[in-house]
Amino acid sequence: MKLTLAEPRLLKDSISIISDLVTETRIRILKDYVELVAMDPANVAMVIFKMPSSCFAEYEIKEDTVIAINLNNLKQVLRRAKPSDVLTLEKAEGKLKITLKEKTVRTFFLPLIDLEERAQKIPQLTAKATIEFQSTMLNDAIDDMDIVGESVSFLAQKDKLVISASGDLTKAEVVILKDDSVKITTETDQKSKYSIEYLKKMMQGSKLASKATLKFSNDYPLTLEYKETDKLSLTFILAPRVDND
Amino acid sequence: MKLTLAEPRLLKDSISIISDLVTETRIRILKDYVELVAMDPANVAMVIFKMPSSCFAEYEIKEDTVIAINLNNLKQVLRRAKPSDVLTLEKAEGKLKITLKEKTVRTFFLPLIDLEERAQKIPQLTAKATIEFQSTMLNDAIDDMDIVGESVSFLAQKDKLVISASGDLTKAEVVILKDDSVKITTETDQKSKYSIEYLKKMMQGSKLASKATLKFSNDYPLTLEYKETDKLSLTFILAPRVDND
Amino acid sequence: MKLTLAEPRLLKDSISIISDLVTETRIRILKDYVELVAMDPANVAMVIFKMPSSCFAEYEIKEDTVIAINLNNLKQVLRRAKPSDVLTLEKAEGKLKITLKEKTVRTFFLPLIDLEERAQKIPQLTAKATIEFQSTMLNDAIDDMDIVGESVSFLAQKDKLVISASGDLTKAEVVILKDDSVKITTETDQKSKYSIEYLKKMMQGSKLASKATLKFSNDYPLTLEYKETDKLSLTFILAPRVDND
Repeated sequence: MKLTLAEPRLLKDSISIISDLVTETRIRILKDYVELVAMDPANVAMVIFKMPSSCFAEYEIKEDTVIAINLNNLKQVLRRAKPSDVLTLEKAEGKLKITLKEKTVRTFFLPLIDLEERAQKIPQLTAKATIEFQSTMLNDAIDDMDIVGESVSFLAQKDKLVISASGDLTKAEVVILKDDSVKITTETDQKSKYSIEYLKKMMQGSKLASKATLKFSNDYPLTLEYKETDKLSLTFILAPRVDND
Repeated sequence: MKLTLAEPRLLKDSISIISDLVTETRIRILKDYVELVAMDPANVAMVIFKMPSSCFAEYEIKEDTVIAINLNNLKQVLRRAKPSDVLTLEKAEGKLKITLKEKTVRTFFLPLIDLEERAQKIPQLTAKATIEFQSTMLNDAIDDMDIVGESVSFLAQKDKLVISASGDLTKAEVVILKDDSVKITTETDQKSKYSIEYLKKMMQGSKLASKATLKFSNDYPLTLEYKETDKLSLTFILAPRVDND
Repeated sequence: MKLTLAEPRLLKDSISIISDLVTETRIRILKDYVELVAMDPANVAMVIFKMPSSCFAEYEIKEDTVIAINLNNLKQVLRRAKPSDVLTLEKAEGKLKITLKEKTVRTFFLPLIDLEERAQKIPQLTAKATIEFQSTMLNDAIDDMDIVGESVSFLAQKDKLVISASGDLTKAEVVILKDDSVKITTETDQKSKYSIEYLKKMMQGSKLASKATLKFSNDYPLTLEYKETDKLSLTFILAPRVDND
């Protein structure tokens, strides 16, 4: 197995974001793409990352390969990659060999680990509301809610998305109207509530893509997708918070 | 009551500075201006903030209104205001409703609180020395003194202002000469000493105004004023430190 | 004694770097240069700093002068120097008087201290390998190694310098090839290992000089030199780490 990226930034940023949610994970290197599917330790959020083989300068595997690795280790090495470095990933000496090559050649060997848990299955979700908008709009709204509470409600209506939170005597609300740059698709009002702590980690995906897609139904898991066509997709699935009162 | 500011920066910065000294306070919304007068919890410093009604795009009150509020809450909301947001303050549902409006509309509701203490009276002070100079000169001098000690002495002389501090075997002194940009008015030498901890909080007023005015007498309260004509004034009164030895 | 520097940056940065290794030290003011020679408290590293009298705007001593001082105090004062300040060092009132002069005059008095330990002698070292290269290349390599381990190995070969580290199941290696900008002189392979904690403090010398010179032999002290001709030299000597296993 030998994968070479001419531009390491996207992988570097992706791993940095994912490692905020997941520490140890499997990475599958398949014929057409690299895939990482993992649950966070609390089983509240799932992350699905895909990078097509076409965006690698070199993509050489004999057969489908699965490696398991500590993402914090990987993040630390990738953080050392400069924009001008050529990055190569290889399996060598029973380790993951990472080479950063520019004028000097820098090599890192990271241990492969044994993961006991089984591979995660991606759930089939059928959300009733879909919103596609600038990824920074979501970041702004979540930062607004962060002043007020620990959970965030999304309410999708035909012509707007209402994001709200309420805390101890305080409350906050952002209204995002449907327009040319905000696409909202829903038949009926859909409302669900999610943990702001997780949303703050997920919204870092805005570093990867200028658009974000949000999908949810009433009290239903949220799907948040960041996608750069032909380059990568980073999707999060987040369990809803259902009030018992 | 409904107040609208086309440019939220000045209010945002003012509340941020004041909240370093005072946590809970009354704000009076009068016919001609908004006023905040408060003592810090240790009763060492007073802050007096005024913003004339003329600098609001909309200033609508039926009668003089007093609200009491937690400034940290207010600061957190104002911190979310972008330079291009239009800011509106209203009393609604027994709360302070803050609206930030640009493309999206963002609304925050903050609780109004009950303040037991009586309204503060502004003391009538008659300082013998007055110095008006660039506000950053004061910041620089206080940062210099901060290396050395916990209190700062101001000595006003006919032709100069001497700012000094002394600590454990160390001492520091800054001499600021009277000139075109440094106006000094005093009949006789005046000297007084103040807490550097408080001065460091007060000098943040330099974010609001390019000029600072300092007034004091021998062992007498200090008045430090930041003023932008027709926009705002932020004045601090600080008790002197009198040595017993 | 009176020394004046028209441009305080180099002294400011040097003292800041040295104070990370040494807290209290003697400084010798001699006819031709100012010199500081000191060991770190753990006796693992020596620092040798020289600034020729020619780079001072004023250099006035009656006789060779030795002062002892706390470098953290000195660093704090120098940190207050702006690029445009003229810096003067004098011995006055049994203290070190530091004046920063621009429009305002700022004066600091720092205590001189009594140092019990004897003056340090600079060891005569005869390293077999010498590498001269861009100082930032060393910084990059040490930051790479910092991910992996607590010590760094340098291996000098005829045509390359190999910097490596290994930790718990991980390892890293940087290969720097000899070329126009990387001068390597060694007859035979030389290899030695050093503490990364110390190297990270020493490599801050790259703020002072664009080139770094590295000298070592097998399991032998490392000499790391930063030099700006006619301006200053900052040299570190670091004891090797010899494995007992």
